[in-house]
Amino acid sequence: MPSPLSSKYTIFQSDSAIRAKGYITDDAPLRLRMESFVKNLQNRICADIEAIDGKGKFTRSVWERPEFGGEGITCVLSEGNVMEKAGVAVSVIYSELSPEAVRQMREDRGKDINVEGTVPFFVTGISLVMHAKNPNAPTVHLNYRYFEVMNPDGTPNIWWFGGGADLTPVYLFEEDAIAFHQTYKEGCDKFDKSYYPKMKKDCDKYFLNIHRGESRGIGGIFFDDFNSKPAEEIFSLVKELGNRFLPSYTGILNKRKDMEYTEDMVHWQQIRRGRYVEFNLIWDRGTKFGLATPCARVESILMTLPLTARWEYMYEPKAGSREAALEEVLKNPRDWVLLEN
Amino acid sequence: MPSPLSSKYTIFQSDSAIRAKGYITDDAPLRLRMESFVKNLQNRICADIEAIDGKGKFTRSVWERPEFGGEGITCVLSEGNVMEKAGVAVSVIYSELSPEAVRQMREDRGKDINVEGTVPFFVTGISLVMHAKNPNAPTVHLNYRYFEVMNPDGTPNIWWFGGGADLTPVYLFEEDAIAFHQTYKEGCDKFDKSYYPKMKKDCDKYFLNIHRGESRGIGGIFFDDFNSKPAEEIFSLVKELGNRFLPSYTGILNKRKDMEYTEDMVHWQQIRRGRYVEFNLIWDRGTKFGLATPCARVESILMTLPLTARWEYMYEPKAGSREAALEEVLKNPRDWVLLEN
Repeated sequence: MPSPLSSKYTIFQSDSAIRAKGYITDDAPLRLRMESFVKNLQNRICADIEAIDGKGKFTRSVWERPEFGGEGITCVLSEGNVMEKAGVAVSVIYSELSPEAVRQMREDRGKDINVEGTVPFFVTGISLVMHAKNPNAPTVHLNYRYFEVMNPDGTPNIWWFGGGADLTPVYLFEEDAIAFHQTYKEGCDKFDKSYYPKMKKDCDKYFLNIHRGESRGIGGIFFDDFNSKPAEEIFSLVKELGNRFLPSYTGILNKRKDMEYTEDMVHWQQIRRGRYVEFNLIWDRGTKFGLATPCARVESILMTLPLTARWEYMYEPKAGSREAALEEVLKNPRDWVLLEN
Repeated sequence: MPSPLSSKYTIFQSDSAIRAKGYITDDAPLRLRMESFVKNLQNRICADIEAIDGKGKFTRSVWERPEFGGEGITCVLSEGNVMEKAGVAVSVIYSELSPEAVRQMREDRGKDINVEGTVPFFVTGISLVMHAKNPNAPTVHLNYRYFEVMNPDGTPNIWWFGGGADLTPVYLFEEDAIAFHQTYKEGCDKFDKSYYPKMKKDCDKYFLNIHRGESRGIGGIFFDDFNSKPAEEIFSLVKELGNRFLPSYTGILNKRKDMEYTEDMVHWQQIRRGRYVEFNLIWDRGTKFGLATPCARVESILMTLPLTARWEYMYEPKAGSREAALEEVLKNPRDWVLLEN
């Protein structure tokens, strides 16, 4: 029996041989097809956002950790015409779970990982956050990831998908919230009518600034540990949802990016940016996990933070104002689309 | 035997009767003398900082949670002449530890709490953060607190002190770092020459942005769970150190507050503000504990955040610059005063 250490490298090398052909066919392992999908999606998103921005360009940093079998591509656009700060990151990690990590996963996540000792795992994903300049245009976040613990022969022993997309407006435009949710609902409904209602609710539950009793934004969809359907079916869903990012956001962005705004609106935007920072640094599991990982690339993890933020003691929007209307909807999440249709 | 619930109220009421006399004498329980000390210190600090600021006034919010026996006074000065944002908070809490919380305290902090069931506790403290406007003037933080688990008759069953003070410059002035440390070393040395070296090291250890491998600032003193000397002796030390806050900071502030500065220096200040936010929201135990406490007053906990902050992807100060000199000292904490003298 090969040692787990060597199995990680054997798998990494056989995957690399497939990659070296220059294309990934439909019979390649799912993990390679997911990797290929997220890299392609990253390129498409960056290209379309650059086109809308008209000025800003994504800087592209490729980082490798050959000793860990880790690789990442982080693209960040700062201070464009339309985007204040936009980051789109992809990572591909081959690494190992220690027996301790396996035990933790069993306990914390209820995972029934049928392995002994140190085991190889793989994870790939895309994540993005875009903070637009115009306070009328919302911030958006997306994340899709695939995790796999491998058998020594490279086949998956245990796997799951996670991800979602959510919108964080500075000012509420109901039509934008409806359009965003509608886009994802339609994607989910193609697979299973029960997906959207559950993922919508889980999104509201996750993106919550618990200490303020207020959601980060107007939600979207969220799922994690998803493996209750055949992997190929979930992968199709993830592709469907990932491909819906550009239509879900660029329509809204194009409608809002040139609207007039005042200094007071920028002020409120900065307060909201502060709440975004609070969620990401205090509650977001991905950020916490990332920052606690030895040798993590901090810049890629914290690219999600806005360019600037503001904290005023006891700030309260005026009753009846548009600012108060946003807070109202953050404190009382709404259903933006009818669940029966 | 009185139920623990009633013992909390009995103690609260007998303490309130002492307070109602209008003064706290030397034979009052230590907890009341500590409360009186921190409230008085808060007043003195606010008065002196207002005098230096010349324009800004501290707003004073008093909050009470009679059902919990909680009370607090939060003073915040925003956008003054000298201060961008300064907060000084005092709190006085009578509450109860559940058997679960006692168990946790035994496990997490190694506390040998000799009690059964729900037990009354008391905690009082002062905390402050001051972010000056001028990038030449440092941010400062202070915190002193006293914790006590009471016997049903109101005498302390177990107690400890914690606290300290530390300085976070935007630009390094070695003379300021030396003066700040010297002030606290002299205070410590009056009691025990071993205090300062240990508290200095513990401060460097605590105020560390672990994910960046960089200290929050140039340190100061820090201690926690301090009960290895008679309580009266530690209380005297705490008073000595608390009283040294104004001399430790106002001299530096007066020297720096009117120095000229450029837009570039403000830019670097905003980057450093971002790091301050990172520490407070990701690593600071007090903030985490506070935000996880049900019914916590969020505004008082987050008053420590700067007015504004900035995050730039892959920001690096120029080699040889004053900005790089600060980073160097944050990555390699120095001894600012000789330890033998």
